[in-house]
Amino acid sequence: MTTLPAVRLLAFDVFGTVVDWRGSIAREIEALEPKVDGAAFADAWRGRYQPAMQQVRSGERPWANIDTLHRENLDAVLDQFGIADRFDEAARRDLNKAWHRLSPWPDSVVGLSRLKSRFVVTTLSNGNVALLTHMAKNAGLPWDCVISAETFRAYKPLPGAYLGLASLFDLEPHEVMLCAAHAADLRAAAACGLRTAYIDRPLEFGAGQPGDIPAPGERFDLMTRSIIDLAAQLGC
Amino acid sequence: MTTLPAVRLLAFDVFGTVVDWRGSIAREIEALEPKVDGAAFADAWRGRYQPAMQQVRSGERPWANIDTLHRENLDAVLDQFGIADRFDEAARRDLNKAWHRLSPWPDSVVGLSRLKSRFVVTTLSNGNVALLTHMAKNAGLPWDCVISAETFRAYKPLPGAYLGLASLFDLEPHEVMLCAAHAADLRAAAACGLRTAYIDRPLEFGAGQPGDIPAPGERFDLMTRSIIDLAAQLGC
Repeated sequence: MTTLPAVRLLAFDVFGTVVDWRGSIAREIEALEPKVDGAAFADAWRGRYQPAMQQVRSGERPWANIDTLHRENLDAVLDQFGIADRFDEAARRDLNKAWHRLSPWPDSVVGLSRLKSRFVVTTLSNGNVALLTHMAKNAGLPWDCVISAETFRAYKPLPGAYLGLASLFDLEPHEVMLCAAHAADLRAAAACGLRTAYIDRPLEFGAGQPGDIPAPGERFDLMTRSIIDLAAQLGC
Repeated sequence: MTTLPAVRLLAFDVFGTVVDWRGSIAREIEALEPKVDGAAFADAWRGRYQPAMQQVRSGERPWANIDTLHRENLDAVLDQFGIADRFDEAARRDLNKAWHRLSPWPDSVVGLSRLKSRFVVTTLSNGNVALLTHMAKNAGLPWDCVISAETFRAYKPLPGAYLGLASLFDLEPHEVMLCAAHAADLRAAAACGLRTAYIDRPLEFGAGQPGDIPAPGERFDLMTRSIIDLAAQLGC
């Protein structure tokens, strides 16, 4: 058990850290279009996520939430896969909501429930509030509250997301711990003074496809293998 | 059972509607200062709430959240009751957090839990996000998410609070129902196109002290006697 007495609030990245976006999106599209390679479709859709947010971060375009960006990206990916004529407006709207229905990793619900006994446990995701709320309801994720980059109009890894959360709870940055499967997110949080917990998710991008993992020798405050492991390391 | 098929999201006023601020504050101050009339202290503290928010609504002062306004009002009320010298900075900070620890009415947790089976259930309170989150954790209020006037920097009854919530969930105003014990809040929501449910809380201001009740003959979409009654009327 690690003692981090100052930490009051645990903030979780969600896509990839708490839920399996790739497997969930692949299942949804394969159920609709059995001839499509679901994992490839999920990767193509997700591949357009960071570039779309970067246009907002840079100020190249005004604020747009993730439901909006996902929908624009979906239209492009349906074209790319040659199946645009199979999806009318209503079908696209419904498929876009697949991100509201992502399945948790097997340890997520139990791990979060244990952590709630000692900490305030919130999201800090680039996903919008409605998406995160619907996802929590569908998957049984027991958040104490739902906080999004949308709340601050600052997509991670912009400092405004991390510092906005600390300010909202009247906490010093070192009283907040970001929990994430992605090194870039954790590095940006650490640069703002937050504590950091890495959660290894080796299957996020498929077997044998490492994601944004720590560099050789790089350490965060906690290095964990699951949310249950995080709870154990924090004595919950 | 009433059929309101379009309603997707139930938004609850909190102070007085879901929690008993008067009884809770009275108990906290009486535990600290047995000679103080707790109910009178609670009324005095709460009496400064609307005027303080009005300074923000009107633009007379910049945005300040409810923890900040409560603290300013607490300092004034401690002076008013002649007990300012009994509370140092740490004691004032702790007493100010009494609003984070308010007790629910007896029907609140069960009623909200039933409503969650069919609706997204959120707060729409002038209380700040941290206050509402701590309150929910302490009282076991099972919100799907915590939305505050702070999210929109628009204190109810400004339209920005009601319309901001509908927009956040990509809903039309008539797909959102405000549930509140105060007619002014419900009238403002109705003027924005929201559905409305009145919840009678005859003890909010003490026995025999009616609060902001509907005018004679005034009707909201639903007229209820508790959150359990609301759940029953909505078929949950």
